Amino acid sequence: MSSYPRSPLAPESFPDLPEVAGVELHAFAAGLRYTGRPDLFLALLPEGTTVGGVFTQSQCASGPVDWCREIISRGTARAVVCNAGNANAFTGSAGAASVHAQVDTLATALDIAAQDIYVCSTGVIGEPLDDAAMVAALGALVAAEPTGWPDAALAITTTDTFTKGASARIAGGSVVGIAKGSGMIAPNMATMLGFVFTDVAATAAACQQAIAESTARSFNRVTVDSDTSTSDTVLLFSTQQSMPESGPIDGPGHPDWDSFVSGVGWVCMDLAHQIVKDGEGATKFIAVTVEGAVSDSSAENVARSIADSPLVKTAMAAEDANWGRIVMAVGKAGEPADRDLLDIWIGDEQITHAGQVHPDYSEERANVFLQAAEITVRVDLHQGTGAATVWTCDLTHGYIEINAGYRS
Amino acid sequence: MSSYPRSPLAPESFPDLPEVAGVELHAFAAGLRYTGRPDLFLALLPEGTTVGGVFTQSQCASGPVDWCREIISRGTARAVVCNAGNANAFTGSAGAASVHAQVDTLATALDIAAQDIYVCSTGVIGEPLDDAAMVAALGALVAAEPTGWPDAALAITTTDTFTKGASARIAGGSVVGIAKGSGMIAPNMATMLGFVFTDVAATAAACQQAIAESTARSFNRVTVDSDTSTSDTVLLFSTQQSMPESGPIDGPGHPDWDSFVSGVGWVCMDLAHQIVKDGEGATKFIAVTVEGAVSDSSAENVARSIADSPLVKTAMAAEDANWGRIVMAVGKAGEPADRDLLDIWIGDEQITHAGQVHPDYSEERANVFLQAAEITVRVDLHQGTGAATVWTCDLTHGYIEINAGYRS
Repeated sequence: MSSYPRSPLAPESFPDLPEVAGVELHAFAAGLRYTGRPDLFLALLPEGTTVGGVFTQSQCASGPVDWCREIISRGTARAVVCNAGNANAFTGSAGAASVHAQVDTLATALDIAAQDIYVCSTGVIGEPLDDAAMVAALGALVAAEPTGWPDAALAITTTDTFTKGASARIAGGSVVGIAKGSGMIAPNMATMLGFVFTDVAATAAACQQAIAESTARSFNRVTVDSDTSTSDTVLLFSTQQSMPESGPIDGPGHPDWDSFVSGVGWVCMDLAHQIVKDGEGATKFIAVTVEGAVSDSSAENVARSIADSPLVKTAMAAEDANWGRIVMAVGKAGEPADRDLLDIWIGDEQITHAGQVHPDYSEERANVFLQAAEITVRVDLHQGTGAATVWTCDLTHGYIEINAGYRS
Repeated sequence: MSSYPRSPLAPESFPDLPEVAGVELHAFAAGLRYTGRPDLFLALLPEGTTVGGVFTQSQCASGPVDWCREIISRGTARAVVCNAGNANAFTGSAGAASVHAQVDTLATALDIAAQDIYVCSTGVIGEPLDDAAMVAALGALVAAEPTGWPDAALAITTTDTFTKGASARIAGGSVVGIAKGSGMIAPNMATMLGFVFTDVAATAAACQQAIAESTARSFNRVTVDSDTSTSDTVLLFSTQQSMPESGPIDGPGHPDWDSFVSGVGWVCMDLAHQIVKDGEGATKFIAVTVEGAVSDSSAENVARSIADSPLVKTAMAAEDANWGRIVMAVGKAGEPADRDLLDIWIGDEQITHAGQVHPDYSEERANVFLQAAEITVRVDLHQGTGAATVWTCDLTHGYIEINAGYRS
């Protein structure tokens, strides 16, 4: 957790999350970087657990991401372990050796296959992990009393100012997720780390499809600073403890598929929004919706251009209806758009129509929407039927303070 | 000019620029938005003047850009006029009417063809110009005593904290340019406005080629905030007052071509660097060079990814050798790169080699380079022979203050 004050956009408290049958949580204050709080997380999963996952698109992915990518084709999992404070990224062969040391320690201690152990690390890039300290800490982590979601969510945080959890009821059981993320947040994947669990039996392929679809619409649609992490990982585990009448969920043909995929999607979206609300220095949560694009992906690019624009984000911080900056961001996106057809709204106030300021536009009314903690920006390009929403936060002195003053 | 303090990276004073034969400069304090300083600029050019130009790639280009694009195929020019404070962008048919009102007023007053008059506007987007006030001011502008480069450079500024000019001697004469730009600075085109003049006779096609090549390597290689203006325009005028022995410069086959194109390139590069040094809130001038890419354009994309990264820019502001953020920015660029081959330098200090920290790396030595006002970051991808440099500035509280507090 950050030493900075809790985000003004944070929820009042950590949500009350149900247990997921089969998931045993551990957390331990290993003191590897942070003190006085758990910084090591472990979830133990029963035999037969299936898994799907998505990873950073970075060309400089971390050693742990390499490992998870290598084992995920098996589709099975027995544990996921995560340390906070050191990303074990850009650490060369030492990084790969660290992953193996962790995996081997846990495989022996828990008597499970090394290839069923998912490893995540988050924190500073480029510093080798202290393997001896890590191995000792893992022993203590395994030996620690099982704990609950609040401690688990806390153990994976770095610069976060609040812990993030979400849940959904689905046919036959529940979906629960925790996530961490606050800066270096941008597309592919947008979160640093997200761990989602369900007791409902689903095949590995179904888990993969559900988490990939959910991520595309949630974590990959948020941006804090357009920077993409080397460590981004989202995993969905199915512990198989609740068996649907018609067998494990195996894809869109299954009667429980819709319930399953909406539950996973809901949890991912809730966590993704929490990450934006914990965006470094954020004081506004901003939903940017673009409609009337030639395609959904064109709409997403325009929305992202607006959501990533420092000039738009500083205007929002200032509660200034400087909508010319939105026009600018549409213009620079490079997607099909016609200046003279552009309609723009802030909240419910229509600002432009047909390429100029709307005759009834009132800056006073627009300002009322800007003063709220949650702001919507809507753009209609009038080119087609493509639409997308991207979520972001404002850009404030807080972002500079956190990132120009502190090596997380 | 901005009410903010002069950039710490500003040159000591405005350079001593030679007159360009045939160019008559006017400036006038019209008080259209700013007070106590000239905000209208006019350059009168002799009959026969040729012109080349490049314009914003924005899909939401301003009315003045539309006009300049329309007339530039003629290749001739007799005047360029510019107002500061209102961009006349996103003003619909009123914007086009304003351009025509300005052009018609000047055509009548100066007895020149409307299609030889270039119009530029810079400032707030979306507010219609007051045409009556503008027409009256143009009368006063034409009637004003001719002035020099310092007043001309001042008249085109908005949030700039210093005025920008540059010159070069070339075979047979000189090249002089002025520019404005400070925020909303990013690719295609990177400057808000640049006006370059030469007395040496060159054809319109040669002007076009020289300014396009120069812009690609200068204005289009700087970035302050990744935001692209609706009004970006760079124009090169040749007044034909100095005739080369072998006739007007007409392209790369001409004996004076190399001198001409280097002079234009030098002036553009100097102005582009000045714009970065006046980047909103800038305290560091940063050159990011990427080598060993599969192509020059791949190198440019990686360099731009580093130069645009808010996390890299805040680290530079803090003089913090947090090089993991450079790794992150290489990784997110989406260009061919191999994490395990990456070499990174800050100044002369090699930080990484072959995908991990260099055994001899000293953070102390790296910090010495970071404490300077000008910082170089160099990355070798070891993929091929492509190379490119992109220039940027750091990201500080000053950027937030200027853009979250002030509608320029």
